[in-house]
Amino acid sequence: MMDAPSERTRVKRLNKRAKYDAETVHGILDAMPICHVGYMFNGAPYVTPTLQWREGSRVYWHGSSASRMLEACEDAQVCLTVTILDGFVMARAAFNHSCNYRSVMAFGTARKLTDPAQKEQSLKAFTEGLWPGRWDMLRKMTAQELKATTVLSMELDEASAKIRSGPPGDDEADYGLPIWAGVIPVRQELLAPADDPRLLAGLAPPRHVTDFRIG
Amino acid sequence: MMDAPSERTRVKRLNKRAKYDAETVHGILDAMPICHVGYMFNGAPYVTPTLQWREGSRVYWHGSSASRMLEACEDAQVCLTVTILDGFVMARAAFNHSCNYRSVMAFGTARKLTDPAQKEQSLKAFTEGLWPGRWDMLRKMTAQELKATTVLSMELDEASAKIRSGPPGDDEADYGLPIWAGVIPVRQELLAPADDPRLLAGLAPPRHVTDFRIG
Repeated sequence: MMDAPSERTRVKRLNKRAKYDAETVHGILDAMPICHVGYMFNGAPYVTPTLQWREGSRVYWHGSSASRMLEACEDAQVCLTVTILDGFVMARAAFNHSCNYRSVMAFGTARKLTDPAQKEQSLKAFTEGLWPGRWDMLRKMTAQELKATTVLSMELDEASAKIRSGPPGDDEADYGLPIWAGVIPVRQELLAPADDPRLLAGLAPPRHVTDFRIG
Repeated sequence: MMDAPSERTRVKRLNKRAKYDAETVHGILDAMPICHVGYMFNGAPYVTPTLQWREGSRVYWHGSSASRMLEACEDAQVCLTVTILDGFVMARAAFNHSCNYRSVMAFGTARKLTDPAQKEQSLKAFTEGLWPGRWDMLRKMTAQELKATTVLSMELDEASAKIRSGPPGDDEADYGLPIWAGVIPVRQELLAPADDPRLLAGLAPPRHVTDFRIG
């Protein structure tokens, strides 16, 4: 992680919202597993939603070894973006409406994990990062499943965060207008876990399920 | 909108989850204003979060006329992706964990709206689509604000939806294991609106604020 922006991570628009420090970037990645990965395929840009996780200064994502997305990303330039919407910002003029959000854009070259043991270790870190204690409760991963799973990662050395928070910024002359302005806060809500219809009798959701939070 | 997929919209992985009809695609776009736009800039892919809205068979997004993103998108190939996360699907094996979601990937060439009247009409449609009745309550948009705003759009003729719902799909042999499995449902929760600290006394949030829902 570099504390100074590279040419392409330097936030051009509204750069008072920009942050380049590892703590901020890592905090946003750790708070929201959903990401959107951008890559080129047949000369056109693609954006695929998937889950990401972080280990130290690298970000990871995974999928089926048959995935077109993962194949197109391997050894190629990608952009991985994580966005947490925190609110709709309602101003007195259409022009000053905005959103409160925390986002990260990370650029780099995606590399495939080739060592099966390292791949399994990384999938464990992914699972444990979301649901501590779950990995060892699960049926053990088979060699065939590991083979059918591709894990990609890239160094977080070209990443930037952008954050907006707080009330609307209206034109000074507009504050006297009788128009409701403020923020509608948004968050990802996790509802009560729903048992699998085929769950064995007497099994309750473990703590890593009932305590799970994102955002 | 085509009911048959093009080569690049045909969903390759898990294609039983794919839908190509306009009703499904439009329903997902209309439910979630947040999108991620993928485009090329200096030979590398970029993914920028923004808000989208739909008018008929076209999708729109906007921003500052100084935006690097909008400039790079204009008359270029883009991919606009909307993702609604509906739940975390917890299986008895790591390999069978998944997410419930509704997503759309739309490909096309982004065009800039050049006629100011058409641009203003489209920004009104965006605002009214989210908050019916708000546009006419607001301080009127100025010519300068309109000039400072770029609106892009593209035809939804190459779009596909992908949807997963329901409980985990475990290997038959795993259903007998004493492991909790099920779904942790997720939704975007809107909290009580927070008044702007500089709000004039006596103004309550209008119905379009208190009734607002996404997802």
